[in-house]
Amino acid sequence: MYKVAIIGYGNLGKGVSLALEKVDDIECVGIFTRRDPASVKPVTDLKVYSVDELEKYKDKIDVLILCGGSATDLPDQTAKYLENFNTVDSFDTHARIPEYYEKLSKVASKSKKLSAISIGWDPGLFSIARALFSSVLPSGNDYTFWGKGVSQGHSDAIRRIEGVVNAIQYTIPKQEAIDSVRNGSNPTLTTRDKHLRECFVAVADDADKEKIESQIKNMPNYFADYDTIVNFVSDEEVKAMQKKLSHGGFVFRSGDTSSENGQLLELCLKLDSNPEFTGSVLLAYARAVARLSKEGKSGVYTVFDIPLKYLSPKSEDYLRSTLL
Amino acid sequence: MYKVAIIGYGNLGKGVSLALEKVDDIECVGIFTRRDPASVKPVTDLKVYSVDELEKYKDKIDVLILCGGSATDLPDQTAKYLENFNTVDSFDTHARIPEYYEKLSKVASKSKKLSAISIGWDPGLFSIARALFSSVLPSGNDYTFWGKGVSQGHSDAIRRIEGVVNAIQYTIPKQEAIDSVRNGSNPTLTTRDKHLRECFVAVADDADKEKIESQIKNMPNYFADYDTIVNFVSDEEVKAMQKKLSHGGFVFRSGDTSSENGQLLELCLKLDSNPEFTGSVLLAYARAVARLSKEGKSGVYTVFDIPLKYLSPKSEDYLRSTLL
Repeated sequence: MYKVAIIGYGNLGKGVSLALEKVDDIECVGIFTRRDPASVKPVTDLKVYSVDELEKYKDKIDVLILCGGSATDLPDQTAKYLENFNTVDSFDTHARIPEYYEKLSKVASKSKKLSAISIGWDPGLFSIARALFSSVLPSGNDYTFWGKGVSQGHSDAIRRIEGVVNAIQYTIPKQEAIDSVRNGSNPTLTTRDKHLRECFVAVADDADKEKIESQIKNMPNYFADYDTIVNFVSDEEVKAMQKKLSHGGFVFRSGDTSSENGQLLELCLKLDSNPEFTGSVLLAYARAVARLSKEGKSGVYTVFDIPLKYLSPKSEDYLRSTLL
Repeated sequence: MYKVAIIGYGNLGKGVSLALEKVDDIECVGIFTRRDPASVKPVTDLKVYSVDELEKYKDKIDVLILCGGSATDLPDQTAKYLENFNTVDSFDTHARIPEYYEKLSKVASKSKKLSAISIGWDPGLFSIARALFSSVLPSGNDYTFWGKGVSQGHSDAIRRIEGVVNAIQYTIPKQEAIDSVRNGSNPTLTTRDKHLRECFVAVADDADKEKIESQIKNMPNYFADYDTIVNFVSDEEVKAMQKKLSHGGFVFRSGDTSSENGQLLELCLKLDSNPEFTGSVLLAYARAVARLSKEGKSGVYTVFDIPLKYLSPKSEDYLRSTLL
């Protein structure tokens, strides 16, 4: 049995605890939280400890599954934990991955621990598709579409506007763009061509809706480059939508192997729960980290570095005879 | 530059030679054939040698790309070549992979060479999807659909019937079965539910069409378990269809991460040319074999054993900064 611990118990931590129910070869030592342990109510039967107690469990945990956020939690936490533990995380600030990798590599080279970073579905399964597809079809174009699903960053940006009480933002891939990729026409697509942004916004009674709508639609980086739909709804309606954390998307590689023959490769995910699926992916990679570490490996790994056989609870013989 | 050679020059060998046109880091020493080299007309600018001369090039080739068939060529050829060369092949007789693996493992353990077996799209990319999907979503069902595309084995079986002059057989996935998987209903599907078999058959003038149709439809293993459509056409029409070797298919994993949330993962390939795409995949894995061998690795590898970074011509830094 591989032994893991969950660090941080928000939506992602809950996803990991549910994923643990589906596997037989990994047991969870417990949830470690910065909050008062008594205030944390696990969704499955797991013990809760203060994160201050973590060091005591140094020799009883194979891998820490870090369930904090990429903006503030992970950049500092992972480096600290990696001094004493193997880790797996879902660091998803794409632009900062190289810097994160370098920082952790320095820690791992001293501690001889192993860290799998940026695990989940994007980065994660989508990255696997992008690297695999471009390697086996070198002449072609990549297209990644996200959604329909909630963008937490865009929802936060709306909530920061004066007069907004609550908000949720859905990223929606445009069907005509997907169709043009699928029919092999290798289109050139702008940001606006690919995705639509739909916002559901609850505002204060005295708020200027017209002004808020304009502020959203013209917000640089977040909305200005997109077709954006703003719907004003009640706080209750936003809260109801916030309960369903579905997401998904598509990775395409469209290309050719000769002047006569086009080839189209597609990965598509339809996820009822983004955090539950991400948690399940993290758990599979926690298994890989535990195995690689037991083999004496250390350092920082991504999905590009880990052979698939390490992810599966099945034997190599089984994989070859049944899944190959 | 990695140096490869193509062994055997049928449709797959031609596919590899076209794939070589799309990469900058691999050069081809030549095509080695059992036929008279003068009779082989490469589709790209490559030298042709007799396979009897291969030993002379022992130190000039990093990887042999074996382009023979799985039924008779590869089982003997690969073991022989692996005594002196690293190899990559597309051995696709799923049921015999474990035996093939064992046989080659013995050779590789003596020769210290490296062999990547069963590379292509199924086995190959589809195997990657099956192993990855089942690892990250342990509670669920797998569904693999093939087509629309030509099954060489089924076409051959029809051609063996008395009175048949020529024939081609298309495997067609049933749309209603795909739809039932895609909508997350986790259906139980029989062989007949999943695929349709459509045959285009040219017969001798005096042939008994009714009898031939019945022989096809009732042929055990090949057709008896399927809904089969038989069309009688001219030899010219069959020959025209034989020029287009398109194929493809779908791998689904449909499952759940909790009682509330279903998750659906799908890989879909639409290939205008099956041999050209398979050749392109073989070439990417030839790169991996060359790299692993240069690192001192040996033995028999499948898609489950090789990290993706070995397939890409790009640097690890590039993969992390751009594709992760």
